[in-house]
Amino acid sequence: MPRPARSSSPATLRDLGENALVQRLIRRLPLGASVRVGPGDDCAVTGSARQPRWQLLKTDAVLEGIHFLPEEDLKRVGWKALCRAISDIAAMGGMPEHALITVAAASTLEVERLEHLYQGLRRAARRFGVSVVGGETARSPGPLFINVALTGWVERGRCILRSGGRPGDLLYVTGKLGGSIAGKHLDFMPRLAEARWLTANFPLHAMMDLSDGLGADLPRLAAASRCGYEIDAPLPAHKGQTPENALHDGEDYELLFALAPRHGARLEKTWRNQFPRLPLSRIGRLTQPPPRSAPHPKDSPDLSRHGFDHFAQSR
Amino acid sequence: MPRPARSSSPATLRDLGENALVQRLIRRLPLGASVRVGPGDDCAVTGSARQPRWQLLKTDAVLEGIHFLPEEDLKRVGWKALCRAISDIAAMGGMPEHALITVAAASTLEVERLEHLYQGLRRAARRFGVSVVGGETARSPGPLFINVALTGWVERGRCILRSGGRPGDLLYVTGKLGGSIAGKHLDFMPRLAEARWLTANFPLHAMMDLSDGLGADLPRLAAASRCGYEIDAPLPAHKGQTPENALHDGEDYELLFALAPRHGARLEKTWRNQFPRLPLSRIGRLTQPPPRSAPHPKDSPDLSRHGFDHFAQSR
Repeated sequence: MPRPARSSSPATLRDLGENALVQRLIRRLPLGASVRVGPGDDCAVTGSARQPRWQLLKTDAVLEGIHFLPEEDLKRVGWKALCRAISDIAAMGGMPEHALITVAAASTLEVERLEHLYQGLRRAARRFGVSVVGGETARSPGPLFINVALTGWVERGRCILRSGGRPGDLLYVTGKLGGSIAGKHLDFMPRLAEARWLTANFPLHAMMDLSDGLGADLPRLAAASRCGYEIDAPLPAHKGQTPENALHDGEDYELLFALAPRHGARLEKTWRNQFPRLPLSRIGRLTQPPPRSAPHPKDSPDLSRHGFDHFAQSR
Repeated sequence: MPRPARSSSPATLRDLGENALVQRLIRRLPLGASVRVGPGDDCAVTGSARQPRWQLLKTDAVLEGIHFLPEEDLKRVGWKALCRAISDIAAMGGMPEHALITVAAASTLEVERLEHLYQGLRRAARRFGVSVVGGETARSPGPLFINVALTGWVERGRCILRSGGRPGDLLYVTGKLGGSIAGKHLDFMPRLAEARWLTANFPLHAMMDLSDGLGADLPRLAAASRCGYEIDAPLPAHKGQTPENALHDGEDYELLFALAPRHGARLEKTWRNQFPRLPLSRIGRLTQPPPRSAPHPKDSPDLSRHGFDHFAQSR
């Protein structure tokens, strides 16, 4: 499909946008028979079709100046770096297991600050039962960069993808949305226990974690499920946040999932008993695909006009 | 242990050096029961003690300006990025399996150049049977950064660590050393077939890949094995390279391994038949630990005065 030329200079990442870019780059990458789910969901899934447990694989990076401020307490940054990946494991219904940490830092960085980073990583690892089995520390002339590669596992029957939603499914989100920049983006709790409880007790059709904002992420889940969607209830916004914030701020790290309507009442009742301090909100439903044929997820990077796109931001 | 103060300003990464730093940071990181080998070898090894196969985990990053020049052909950089991690899997006696790729790039990077990067990654993935199952592309204000997280597997009985060497073992290196900067550091072949053949046919005691130069890496293997070492034969230097180059240039990506002397003659004979185009050189032997007790690897980051240390280089 030809792209309208904006100028005579070569296309850059900013022109193309992150989603379209990733679509282009992952095309034709080789995938072996042991790959159950390749790029495009919260995690990759590997294992043979008959194994009782599958492996989950996730990599995720945080960069100084993009995901945290240069003066930030690096204990919080370490927590965030590992918990982002744990949140993705949770969103598949799985449990995290082994982490590898890559840190690229300027040689002038104070050792004490780097130790704070590792304190934060360690705290998250202990809290969620992750073994940090290795990693690398490299000199970088650029900003501080932390990459986490995380493995996990999930029982074959409890692995929840983005793509299993069906028209009519109820859509739920955990917690409250918006305003994460005030601090939650560094201190959030990945919804690991909640996701495990959900997959143990309810036949979820689809799930993902909210990282780019509901306004960007819900269309992705709907597109992956070849559905439309409608939001028909007030969004659960954090105190002082507008519905706009709840929709577009991003970095909520809450769960979004789809469930057949017949399970809705039991879910809402048992959730309140199980997690009395964490709200669960029904926000809408998946619908039939919109009239002009439902876009296939591979061709449709992002149905939303909103949401966070790294490369679309001005530098 | 108090560190002598060099100045009144806080310690930075450059003061401390990469090895000592990593030693400090990985201390007290939690390790679960499923971890067979944690940080410190070429790869981490996970799995239960009785499983027939163990999993290998590796993460490795290359940075523009450190590991490749800004004007470099990114096809070659992609090849290098994946093959460095494959070389580490090979050094454990294993086979690579699933890769996750993180790319951090400026939004002004030309899409065509990034596609070249992925072409190189894809070529390496196809060549060595790796499935690229996911990854992330993030905007960075800094240099181009590529992180590869790679899983692999190895039969329990064929997993070769750095720490199994014994006094009297013969030391061998594959290929030729030195001068990698002229091009080999971008085009090298990970010694995967060679390592698999070695572990199928010989009871190797210890193995690692040469990334920082024999002068830095051999002391690491010896220390991990609680041995001393001696080099008693000419090093196999690349054409035009001095013994000094062969010892200290780094980025050779050849195998260094230790084998009981009784297998030496058979190894040398069968190697020539199996890999007629790749030299195998006996360079020396492991010895009793030096008089003042052999340093424990955990306390001893680097016995060598030479070799490549990212942070010790001036920026």
